[in-house]
Amino acid sequence: MLVRTFVPAHITAFFVPKFHDDPLKAGSLGAGVNLDKGVNVFASIETGTLERHVHISFNGEPVGRERAVISYSVADEIVPDDFTGEVEIWQYFDFPNGYGFGNSAGGALGTALALGYAFGGTWLKAAQVAHKYEVLNRGGLGDVVGQLAGGIEVRVRAGGPGVGVVDNLFFEDYQVLVVPLGKLSTREVLDGDVVKAIEREGRGALEKLLGEPKPERMMALAREFAEKTGLLNGELLELARELDRAISIPSSMIMLGRGLFALLRKDEVENARNLLSDLNLPYDVTGIHEGRPTVGRWVG
Amino acid sequence: MLVRTFVPAHITAFFVPKFHDDPLKAGSLGAGVNLDKGVNVFASIETGTLERHVHISFNGEPVGRERAVISYSVADEIVPDDFTGEVEIWQYFDFPNGYGFGNSAGGALGTALALGYAFGGTWLKAAQVAHKYEVLNRGGLGDVVGQLAGGIEVRVRAGGPGVGVVDNLFFEDYQVLVVPLGKLSTREVLDGDVVKAIEREGRGALEKLLGEPKPERMMALAREFAEKTGLLNGELLELARELDRAISIPSSMIMLGRGLFALLRKDEVENARNLLSDLNLPYDVTGIHEGRPTVGRWVG
Repeated sequence: MLVRTFVPAHITAFFVPKFHDDPLKAGSLGAGVNLDKGVNVFASIETGTLERHVHISFNGEPVGRERAVISYSVADEIVPDDFTGEVEIWQYFDFPNGYGFGNSAGGALGTALALGYAFGGTWLKAAQVAHKYEVLNRGGLGDVVGQLAGGIEVRVRAGGPGVGVVDNLFFEDYQVLVVPLGKLSTREVLDGDVVKAIEREGRGALEKLLGEPKPERMMALAREFAEKTGLLNGELLELARELDRAISIPSSMIMLGRGLFALLRKDEVENARNLLSDLNLPYDVTGIHEGRPTVGRWVG
Repeated sequence: MLVRTFVPAHITAFFVPKFHDDPLKAGSLGAGVNLDKGVNVFASIETGTLERHVHISFNGEPVGRERAVISYSVADEIVPDDFTGEVEIWQYFDFPNGYGFGNSAGGALGTALALGYAFGGTWLKAAQVAHKYEVLNRGGLGDVVGQLAGGIEVRVRAGGPGVGVVDNLFFEDYQVLVVPLGKLSTREVLDGDVVKAIEREGRGALEKLLGEPKPERMMALAREFAEKTGLLNGELLELARELDRAISIPSSMIMLGRGLFALLRKDEVENARNLLSDLNLPYDVTGIHEGRPTVGRWVG
């Protein structure tokens, strides 16, 4: 059986981490955007061998357990204990790993949904497994529930699927500009001193956003959050300011990656493209993915 | 401003009602299917008059407050108190009212989403308002959360949006046959003696479905529920049996309407059509609506 899933890339705009010993109660408050690009996961399940094998590859390259511990853990849990055969999982990422696009959650959720589809699970159970291993391995706290919600999402109660509550903003026809410049370790940030500032500023941003739940307001609050926590600084902050002169809604920092994102009105796309080309920086412009990830049988 | 929303028709397969004084905690457990047909709601908001007027029409006919108390209540709550102008809401139903297609919830949710979009709300807040008036006026208990989930949904924790938890089944490419024969009052059934049987059988069906979460199993359990509660009987039961001879997955009763529904594999559609045409009964064949309702600006 061949199954294909698509999980949108998820950019966090601002957040408040919520740690908990029970991974389903761990999660985050905050807001973010889901993109039309993200992670495509193809799963092939074949029976007929005597042993049970699970193979995972990233962008066509086989990866060992140490480099894909979250997705291997997801597969180990969902593939039934008494299954013998070959499970191959190919994850293809539209954005680089570690740059803040929720690749780890996207790969985990896509894997969980594909295997849930193949082995008789449900959406909720699959999503809970993905969230659990994301949290246990500190891949992220809010990406899985954000990706399940789609669109522009607001995490109003922290927690995994079935526990957390995610709201959605209404929005007009925006394009999303992303400028991915490098990695930032979620794990290091969450272990660092900045967490207190993140909690304080994230909480304030969420409260203000719920008082005026608009995408434009979310971007302004995200920018304020990024600057006040000190996560956005130096050259990246200079770049954000330069970008702001070319577009109408404030740009902000991808949480957590060394990069920027912005909402573009249709007539601003060319301006933004020109600026980034002039600066010789990598960028992409993509739509917002509304609704859920997709799952279905894959007919080559 | 013109806004258009589409909310899928929602057929309940089996259910357990959960009453509660707090409407957001009231809801139902159970399972159901969302259809590609349903309710289209168009909202027009015009300022510039001195008074505030809200007008609602069903299928092009203006309706007074007494015939559309749920949707008028939704509009009254979401349109800001200080708004002056004309709010016109047109609801168009693909299926007849009172036949068990979730029209009342679809109209309420479509209205709430359209007005939320226009007046600065969020998805969750809009959906909560729709659920609240559905419950308070006994339009239904689980339709709003079922319609928000899309696909084939399983309500695993009762409650309104943000409180209840809804799971989804994975499914192959089914068509849905509906045979709408008449009305059944949700209110009368929920006030009657049958509620105890519904609670017992519904609970059992849910438990069994979660043990084997497949659409085919859901239909078999729905049929068992319908027969054991006595809701499906007489001529309608005879018809279900006749239908079953033409298709492979058990048909069941639309909860709550006088009608049947069934999942059809592609190669069964013609069989089913022929049988119902021969019997001279009204029927429709439609796809399953996956994902959320849709909301957006309406450009004529």
